[in-house]
Amino acid sequence: MGWNGSPAEPAAAPAMRWWGWGAADRAPALPAATVARLRAQLGASGPPCPPVALSQVRLPESTLAAPALAELERVLGRHRVALDHAVRVRHAAGRGYLDLVRLRRGEPEGAPDAVLRVGDHRQVLDVLEVCGRRSVAVVPFGGGTSVVGGVAPLRGRHEAVVALDLAGIAGIEALDRESLTVTVGAGMRVAALERELARQGLTLGHFPQSFEYVSLGGCAATRSAGQASTGYGRFEELVLGLRLATPTGEIELHPTPASAAGPDLRELVMGSEGTLGVIDRLTLRVRERPAAHHYEGWLFPDFESGVAALRRLAQEGLAPAVARLSDREETALTLRLAGTGLKQQAARLYVGARGYRDGCLAILGFEGQAARVAATRKAAKRVLRDQRAIALGGGAGEAWLASRFDGPYLRDELLTHGVMVETLETATVWSSLPSLKAAVADAIAGALAGCGTPGIVGCHVSHLYDSGASLYFTLLARTLPGEAERQWHAVKDAAGAAILDGGGTITHHHAIGRDHAGWLAQEVGASGIAALTAVKRQLDPEGIMNPGKLLA
Amino acid sequence: MGWNGSPAEPAAAPAMRWWGWGAADRAPALPAATVARLRAQLGASGPPCPPVALSQVRLPESTLAAPALAELERVLGRHRVALDHAVRVRHAAGRGYLDLVRLRRGEPEGAPDAVLRVGDHRQVLDVLEVCGRRSVAVVPFGGGTSVVGGVAPLRGRHEAVVALDLAGIAGIEALDRESLTVTVGAGMRVAALERELARQGLTLGHFPQSFEYVSLGGCAATRSAGQASTGYGRFEELVLGLRLATPTGEIELHPTPASAAGPDLRELVMGSEGTLGVIDRLTLRVRERPAAHHYEGWLFPDFESGVAALRRLAQEGLAPAVARLSDREETALTLRLAGTGLKQQAARLYVGARGYRDGCLAILGFEGQAARVAATRKAAKRVLRDQRAIALGGGAGEAWLASRFDGPYLRDELLTHGVMVETLETATVWSSLPSLKAAVADAIAGALAGCGTPGIVGCHVSHLYDSGASLYFTLLARTLPGEAERQWHAVKDAAGAAILDGGGTITHHHAIGRDHAGWLAQEVGASGIAALTAVKRQLDPEGIMNPGKLLA
Repeated sequence: MGWNGSPAEPAAAPAMRWWGWGAADRAPALPAATVARLRAQLGASGPPCPPVALSQVRLPESTLAAPALAELERVLGRHRVALDHAVRVRHAAGRGYLDLVRLRRGEPEGAPDAVLRVGDHRQVLDVLEVCGRRSVAVVPFGGGTSVVGGVAPLRGRHEAVVALDLAGIAGIEALDRESLTVTVGAGMRVAALERELARQGLTLGHFPQSFEYVSLGGCAATRSAGQASTGYGRFEELVLGLRLATPTGEIELHPTPASAAGPDLRELVMGSEGTLGVIDRLTLRVRERPAAHHYEGWLFPDFESGVAALRRLAQEGLAPAVARLSDREETALTLRLAGTGLKQQAARLYVGARGYRDGCLAILGFEGQAARVAATRKAAKRVLRDQRAIALGGGAGEAWLASRFDGPYLRDELLTHGVMVETLETATVWSSLPSLKAAVADAIAGALAGCGTPGIVGCHVSHLYDSGASLYFTLLARTLPGEAERQWHAVKDAAGAAILDGGGTITHHHAIGRDHAGWLAQEVGASGIAALTAVKRQLDPEGIMNPGKLLA
Repeated sequence: MGWNGSPAEPAAAPAMRWWGWGAADRAPALPAATVARLRAQLGASGPPCPPVALSQVRLPESTLAAPALAELERVLGRHRVALDHAVRVRHAAGRGYLDLVRLRRGEPEGAPDAVLRVGDHRQVLDVLEVCGRRSVAVVPFGGGTSVVGGVAPLRGRHEAVVALDLAGIAGIEALDRESLTVTVGAGMRVAALERELARQGLTLGHFPQSFEYVSLGGCAATRSAGQASTGYGRFEELVLGLRLATPTGEIELHPTPASAAGPDLRELVMGSEGTLGVIDRLTLRVRERPAAHHYEGWLFPDFESGVAALRRLAQEGLAPAVARLSDREETALTLRLAGTGLKQQAARLYVGARGYRDGCLAILGFEGQAARVAATRKAAKRVLRDQRAIALGGGAGEAWLASRFDGPYLRDELLTHGVMVETLETATVWSSLPSLKAAVADAIAGALAGCGTPGIVGCHVSHLYDSGASLYFTLLARTLPGEAERQWHAVKDAAGAAILDGGGTITHHHAIGRDHAGWLAQEVGASGIAALTAVKRQLDPEGIMNPGKLLA
């Protein structure tokens, strides 16, 4: 782990496990006793449930017609068109909870009928042309990390569906040190770009939990927000220029710091989630690597005090690059899952002694020029103390940094042990934050109880804005055997309704994909949907681009 | 003038002169000797050329058919439908150079066939319904300050055209102090909101040169950027929620700090310039009023040093709220037009003595908490000194503040004296800034010389971003008698071509309107235009909304 939280030279994106997160050789990290206690609390029983063998995964036969296949092979070269079982499995799903449940049991919903490994812009345009003419649906596939069904191999009304794998359109095309911009192939992974930039003393500053695998184009297409977005901005704030290949041509928007030349088409392309076309080039803002960083833990006596402090930090210009506040439940869960490191132990004892046993943990990560970091920390400390926060020191901050990308690995382990793990998120203005948080947590807890699987529901505030913040919920429950889908839908439906009724957005950074498509109309209204649909019809008249997502 | 640069309680937006800027009783400010010297330099001769009398302004007969008029009077009430000459003249044009030339000679291109003074959202929807059915074009009219033909009374293929005056949909609907948001009727003037916010210890921080008259809805529709946008952000960054009334329904986007729920429809509505519908409500970010402010002048030995300093300030997080750097030509012009105040005199002598006679003036305005302002100024000073800037002190800053909205008044005076004054602007990345600046200045100078009216072309950098900045050009030349239109088109055509060829955006904050519509396709491409046109057709199938603008 590098000093500023970016992984120090991770192996170049090792292939992800076909059934879950991370590289195949990653060992389980949760102590058996921790798992056992958690299972007991949730009422989970039964033996571990590992994934089936890859060869046992059942896929439908490819329905790609011979003429379409031949044409695709002609425009791409045969080596870029894959139909074999293993490759199709690896492009059969994203990394949402149901994706994992289905993959692990060897029963994905389906799979692309072929996987197309494009190598340049011309090939993307050629593929779209062929697919439009041959009625083949196209799913743009970057890192495959969607947790909302964004890469589900849906074919809509088409004969077949292909995954368009963009990993081959990667690398830095241009670096403008004076303007601090970098132009990249959009299939490049965020981690790979960060590694290259680090060599130049630069950083993108984008660290979503999917950091190790997610692609830059995927971040743009889904309006990603990284863990340090409070400091570096959401991904869309980093995008100055982009190119979108569509079935009817391309939209190229040259990098500009800002413009008043009509509606901002960048903001129409970003969030389009592959339904309008394929983002294959991006020009991004980069920054000088911060000279100083200081990550630290704080404990608030209650959630309300913590929210008040974060709000003041945001509104007074003191917000750190990373700011996260866990509620009581998530704090307890974090301490439990974090293992038995000495620092955690010490923190727990300290906290217990001071009467903050049920406190709320906050992680604050300050980055920047040394003098600025020092001044900001000093001013922030006053705000934090005003809200009765006690300092846990740098150890808690470093512990968070060291585990910041661990969530998906833990999820895989818990799934093996019959524990459902899901996360969902929203954002709202500060004045609605407490009521929204309570309503969504209650809705999730109620839905789980209604399934006969009462669970643990934790929440944290992150991604601070002057006007509000995001809320990120994590829920754990025993898996309802044979009914994982029903259980999940019960939770998602309850949470989605609570979010929109409570004034939240249906998603702050996970995107719409398939899972939230039913909610979008409530958020943007019928005319909003009509406007987006009109653009879709214009750019993708055959409707081949990522059917069933966003506007489904 | 209040201490932070906002006018202290200006009279509530006195009616603007029908032929120019500002209230009728505003006296000329330029000394006769200054005017005479400038005219001599530009070769302007002839007697002053004041505007004709209002009664002499020739308007075409209203073509609004009796049934349409009757329906509009029915849904609005007769008192809200004006057809009289004076009201039509006041809605006949914006405040671009050609608008003024034509108004002053009593020959506007046309006028709305009626002016509709809507009072609420329901009335807006009703008007759009009637106009869609009766084939009447609708020009949303806020402050009427467009300098790009945005409110020109064009009817397109329709029988008639009405101006939809939104001044009656104004006022604060809700103020959320905790979230620092305010919800307003979009017809409210920026100055009026700023005044109301000041009473609450808050500020919007939006100070375009049109501040005194521009409406909030107009700022949203055109992606306005204020003089302090480096500190407070462009107008679109202040918009959290909005409502757009369209001929086919409404798009209401509730305020959210951020969202990943598909493409950002706010960013599609902002910049739509009335071509999709009428923005009639906004929820905006506000800030606590800054406790400290310090405006100061600096002089750089040359433009390049100044640009280097501003770039470092922006990229090192030291940028003040206001940052402007004039080139040599604009610096000279500024000192000349600023009159003979003692401070100017002193500055001139001082500068001359130190060998900076041909230097470039910068105005830096720091605002915020006292300690932060002090720390930032201190750090900024090092950057400025590195680039050999010399401090002119607070007097120069305060002088700029006191005259920050004077441009349009001076323009009126110079027009009377046969001097053409026009401004145009762009933005680009830092690495392209010097070449773009030179190319555009050369293009303008060449076009003026080609007309036989060699002029003065000045430029300033403002609106700083990490990746680049805006360039704002001011040109003065003697008016070509009887050929003002040809002269102006020669300049605009040359400048537009140079801007786009040089990697700039056709407009950083003036918007597209009619004047830049021909350039938009070059900036966003045919597919970009097609996407926007598709949205337009969906929301405004009859094409009644502001025809001839943006997508003309």
